[in-house]
Amino acid sequence: MSIELLKNAIRDVPDFPKPGIVFKDITPVLHDPQLLRLSVDLFAERHTGQHIDKIAVIDARGFIFGSALAYTLGVGLVPIRKPGKLPYKVIEESYELEYGTNTLAVHVDAFEEGDSVVIVDDLLATGGTAQAAVALVERLGANVRELDVLVELSFLNGREKLEGVNVYSPIVF
Amino acid sequence: MSIELLKNAIRDVPDFPKPGIVFKDITPVLHDPQLLRLSVDLFAERHTGQHIDKIAVIDARGFIFGSALAYTLGVGLVPIRKPGKLPYKVIEESYELEYGTNTLAVHVDAFEEGDSVVIVDDLLATGGTAQAAVALVERLGANVRELDVLVELSFLNGREKLEGVNVYSPIVF
Repeated sequence: MSIELLKNAIRDVPDFPKPGIVFKDITPVLHDPQLLRLSVDLFAERHTGQHIDKIAVIDARGFIFGSALAYTLGVGLVPIRKPGKLPYKVIEESYELEYGTNTLAVHVDAFEEGDSVVIVDDLLATGGTAQAAVALVERLGANVRELDVLVELSFLNGREKLEGVNVYSPIVF
Repeated sequence: MSIELLKNAIRDVPDFPKPGIVFKDITPVLHDPQLLRLSVDLFAERHTGQHIDKIAVIDARGFIFGSALAYTLGVGLVPIRKPGKLPYKVIEESYELEYGTNTLAVHVDAFEEGDSVVIVDDLLATGGTAQAAVALVERLGANVRELDVLVELSFLNGREKLEGVNVYSPIVF
């Protein structure tokens, strides 16, 4: 099982979610038990021997890799979601899109002061989502140890928005 | 670690998502590494020694428990999502709500004929979502081995919509 097999399993879907965009479809990776396990284990290897308090996962595909990661590392899980989805008291963070803005929210009791946190998502594109997630974690007094994404679209320069954040992305297009 | 501890960790949030509804908030379970692990292991124990081909997970909280379950059992994962979220060719199934309807979708290549499938969600309420998920799995020629939910609101009689489906719910309110 190699990262190359993982990369080859990702399917291009043209014109999704809108004309001109080629979407990187990770569902063939999920369907395959060995590729799913490899994806999670690549992240898990990064944090073996580290002290991690929480895995923060970004709605919704981040839930998939991050939940299995939290389970195998034996640490807690914090969902970061769109507004209106989390029932308890939240803080929110907005970020700019090409047209308009998006907002992410997290429960105010999600972290303890000084928690060491790994943020997990499936994909790093322009970096707006990741930047908002980092801000939410830090506003609650926790520290971002690393951002782990399965796929990075490096031509969108998402890392530029994430100065000072360790980013790990085994697959780069 | 007992199921009672798990049940006690679930937090009641009144008037969410609308006035008069008491929402069962599972995020305190997720935050706690031992309770998160117990939740997933309760499901995993159900299927040890069984032949399971896929775990089908319902957007978005079902992703959390189902992904860790697929990882630990070593089987593939199939996301069942709201329309417009899955990029490839899908089939859809609609179900009635108190007011209006909802729709779920799954990729047409998600299952192989005769696959043995466990559907995972966080909560069984009126059963409409679960019923639509069962229909999607069966329309693609696969078989539902069991529906696993962490919490069942038994006063909403969701099981009535799921005749012939094995339902497992360690926590019942």
